[in-house]
Formats: sequence, structure tokens, C-alpha cells
Amino acid sequence: MASPILMQMIQRLGRLPGLGPRSGRRAALFLLKNRERLLGPLIQSMEKAMEKVHPCSVCGYLDEQSPCSLCRDTRRNASLLCVVSDVSDVWALEKMKSFQGVYHVLGGNLSVLDGVGPKHLRMKSLLARLQDGVIQEVILALSPTVEGSATTHFVTQEIEKAGLKPHFTMLARGVPLGGELDFLDEGTLGEAFRGRKRF
Amino acid sequence: MASPILMQMIQRLGRLPGLGPRSGRRAALFLLKNRERLLGPLIQSMEKAMEKVHPCSVCGYLDEQSPCSLCRDTRRNASLLCVVSDVSDVWALEKMKSFQGVYHVLGGNLSVLDGVGPKHLRMKSLLARLQDGVIQEVILALSPTVEGSATTHFVTQEIEKAGLKPHFTMLARGVPLGGELDFLDEGTLGEAFRGRKRF
Repeated sequence: MASPILMQMIQRLGRLPGLGPRSGRRAALFLLKNRERLLGPLIQSMEKAMEKVHPCSVCGYLDEQSPCSLCRDTRRNASLLCVVSDVSDVWALEKMKSFQGVYHVLGGNLSVLDGVGPKHLRMKSLLARLQDGVIQEVILALSPTVEGSATTHFVTQEIEKAGLKPHFTMLARGVPLGGELDFLDEGTLGEAFRGRKRF
Repeated sequence: MASPILMQMIQRLGRLPGLGPRSGRRAALFLLKNRERLLGPLIQSMEKAMEKVHPCSVCGYLDEQSPCSLCRDTRRNASLLCVVSDVSDVWALEKMKSFQGVYHVLGGNLSVLDGVGPKHLRMKSLLARLQDGVIQEVILALSPTVEGSATTHFVTQEIEKAGLKPHFTMLARGVPLGGELDFLDEGTLGEAFRGRKRF
């Protein structure tokens, strides 16, 4: 129904996560209605991001320079490496403002459904970073899902296969702040009980 | 947390209908992860749409030519005009494949909340189209909402004020196909009863 150019724009917008065919149409009409105020600026910042924002060659974080600002920051503790799936995990952890080590962004979790295999993960650069022995501890901060656990297992195995022996740690499991006990699943409660501490 | 360029892209994506700050972030990361496969093509089609797709000078429909393909189509009945709020309404009506008249896209409904006033609606070109008396019937196909009804009222008044006297019609109200009676509101049921027909 829409003109070919508009149709194409709708289809491509509809492939964004959170949008679909119907909301892609809505987004396209909204953009064309707000041509100068939104469509133009959005194109501009997408172009700039496409040109300037790239994964850091060391850790995989997205930045305008490579190595990225986090890798370049000499105040950070280079002996403590936190392995995460995605850039958004770095944002979440940085918001907490208490981790002072460095990161490694794998670029996803192993997932048969999403077609993510070992070769899609940033493993080569991870193994390279561990070679010189500066990194003492590797924190595996992957989600406690099936995919996250499989990825954790894969990463530790690959590191060990390479003959490297850093300390592996993982984030504590337990009751989240503000979490109501009777809304928590048995798995989480079980972990919280087994990991109980004196206070 | 994100680099300035990335931050800007996220903010602008987050202003799309259906997206917000959080899903804007997700969309931006998804686009940068699928740089060649999606980000590049999306920029390209947005640029093309920005350059080539404009509202038709006659009816306000979005097309790559003006007058648009619907206005140029001489097989359509030029004496029958259907007034709608938005381009998406034209798409919905065209899908039904039985309306053979022409359209007029107002570009929205009067709405205090959204800041849409009389001057935002495509009224001048509507009145101009009615001048020569070719259009006999004006179908007001606006949504039966508070804003849609206010807009219907406003449009008919403006046309009458201009001394023009086309036949005004509106879409029938009643039970939608596949609609379960006990899920319908009293308003719709009332209209369906008052509008009942012999069969």
C-alpha cells in the first residue's frame, strides 16, 4: 500500500527489537510527520554512530576510540577482569560505581535458537589478554539463564584448555534488594539459604 | 555511560512511538551489532524516504510523487471524498479494496493533550477541493473517540461556514465482525440496536 521507499523503511524499522510490522509502520509515519525535528537528527546520529562507534579491539565495549575509554583508564585495576555478554551489561555494572576492574564483552551468549556459536564470541582476544598473567581474577558475570550458564562453562573451559589458571569467580546468588520472599522462585531461595552468612 | 554519539542515537531512537529509554538502548545496540545487515540499510532507506516521500499537495497522503498515485488514478470516483485523520487510515481502508473514491488526510485529530489545533489540520486544501462542486459526498471516516468526534464536528462546521453543501456521511456503527456480544460496550450495542436492519 505504501510507496516502495516508505515500505522499505517500514520493513527495516520493524526489525528493531521491540518493534514489529505494525509498530514499524507507526514509527515510520511518526518520523515522516516529524521530519525536521526527529527524522533528520536521527539519521544524522545513526550515521555518526555507524562511522565513529566501534567495538574496542581489546575488550569489545562500544566506544569512539579503540582501545576504549575503560581500557585506557589507568586508574582501573587491570588484574581484575569482568566477563559480560553485552555492552548493556557494562552499563549496568558501571552504574553501580563500585567495580574498578576492567571488562571483556563476549558479544552474546551461546544460543542454538539465536544461532550464536563459539565463533561468534570474542574469545580469541580474551585468551590473548590472559597470556601475560597480569589478570589474576576472572569474574564471570553472565546471566544465570540456561544460555548464560552454558557460556560461563564454555569460557572457563577454553581458558583452562589454553593452560591458563586465573581465579574464576561468579556473582553471588541470593535475594535481590526489595525482593519479596514469597514472590521468589525456589531456585533463588535455595541459593540464598545455602549461601547464608553471619551478620 | 555510553559515548556521546551513541548516547544521542539512543535518546533519539527512544523517542519513537513504541520505544522508550530502555528499548532505545536495546535498539541502538542491536543496530550497531548488525551494522552492515541493518544499520546501514536503515539509514539508507530513511534518507531516501526523507528526500523522496512527501505529503501529496492535494490530499496529504504520503507518496513519492505529488499529486499522489491515488489522486492521479483517473479510475477513482472523484465525486466521493473520504476524510481520514492519518495516512495509516488510508492504508486500512485501501486494504478493504472496495472504496473507489478519493481521500483527504487531515494529518491528525484535534487534541488539546497532543497540542493539535485547527491550524495543524489540512483544512485549507480540503475547502479548496470542495469549491468546484465536483465532490458530492464527504464521508467522515474519523475514529469514534472524543478527539475524532470533535474533529468531525469541526470539519463539517468549517465546510458549512464556507457556504459549501456536500452530502455528509459517516461510517456505520455496530457490532464488528467476530466481536462477541458480551465483550462489547453498551455504547456500541446501543448503536447496533438503533441501527438494526431487516434481513
